[in-house]
Amino acid sequence: MGATTNEGLEIAKKSREIVREKIKDFINNFNEKEVEIVERVVHATADVEFAKLLVFKNNPIYEGVKAISEKKPIVVDINMVKAGVRYDKVICPIDFKESYVLAKREGITRGKASMRVAKKYIDDGIVVIGNSPTALLEVIRMVKDNEVKPRLVIGVPVGFVKAEESKKELLKLDIPLITCLGPKGGTPVAVAIINGLIAKARGGVV
Amino acid sequence: MGATTNEGLEIAKKSREIVREKIKDFINNFNEKEVEIVERVVHATADVEFAKLLVFKNNPIYEGVKAISEKKPIVVDINMVKAGVRYDKVICPIDFKESYVLAKREGITRGKASMRVAKKYIDDGIVVIGNSPTALLEVIRMVKDNEVKPRLVIGVPVGFVKAEESKKELLKLDIPLITCLGPKGGTPVAVAIINGLIAKARGGVV
Repeated sequence: MGATTNEGLEIAKKSREIVREKIKDFINNFNEKEVEIVERVVHATADVEFAKLLVFKNNPIYEGVKAISEKKPIVVDINMVKAGVRYDKVICPIDFKESYVLAKREGITRGKASMRVAKKYIDDGIVVIGNSPTALLEVIRMVKDNEVKPRLVIGVPVGFVKAEESKKELLKLDIPLITCLGPKGGTPVAVAIINGLIAKARGGVV
Repeated sequence: MGATTNEGLEIAKKSREIVREKIKDFINNFNEKEVEIVERVVHATADVEFAKLLVFKNNPIYEGVKAISEKKPIVVDINMVKAGVRYDKVICPIDFKESYVLAKREGITRGKASMRVAKKYIDDGIVVIGNSPTALLEVIRMVKDNEVKPRLVIGVPVGFVKAEESKKELLKLDIPLITCLGPKGGTPVAVAIINGLIAKARGGVV
């Protein structure tokens, strides 16, 4: 999982075995491909609770891997997420000049503004939100208003304000999605999920 | 905490109030400046457990803020951490060519090799490790062998293999340090801590 040297691979392998043992009571809630993603998230966070919190809806792994194989863009909410994703078409619109201008003009968060700015990439693309609940809520609104039709939304914002609510709203959509219940989430969760799908797409396994 | 618009500032403020309420049973373990850092970490992770796990040793906030005010370099383990730190002298040596070469030659992790490569920045600088236990262990070795004398080490690697052990070893050093007990930690924890110190340095409050 990112390791490229003998010592690194050894640590990753041992960690994976420990994670597998720790989450064994929860794996019946998931199919085989989902379990792999759950393992990656628990590996990345050392937080077993994610095995209880993660939710997969509408065959998101198959759909995500397919979209990645077709080289669709991946739109992310913040630069920390971008830095972690191993893919060459990652769009992080939060620093686009248009996002600053729109946020200031409308008095909204830059995260929210950035999703509106990235509309053409979100339509038929993949969205990965690890932090900004207002960005996720904006994507949800655009889906509801038929402005975009993303191939997959990974929405795992973190925090005690709006994060949980935004994920509940996401779950109501009838599109391929991956999320987690409650206030937990964040950059490592988002990155572990999307890198898991990218690894699958590269391995040719769907 | 990163928010720049009205809506963003509103969310950050409300979140801070919720966090303060949630960690109130633990704040007696910390001084006032430390509590602010604990709040930032719990805000960033939505994981109250960090209020029980964080450890501050040898006046690390004062020392860190002082080093930042003197524009000392901040050496980090991975690019995700670098992407989150709001400072213009962040060094992430993992992608340096010398780190690849050294890792391959010695059969060690790139994280470990990268710390050896960044020796001149670590000496009299700040180290922030959110992920790689082998990187942290290498910094600890260099300190013990009197090869470097960092002004502050923030060591919060995450994972079930070596992370906890590396943090226990860090705690034995007699230098300014911030760490967390157990396997939890990671990029958002590391970034929340160092950005808290940077904000303090900018505000002129030590």
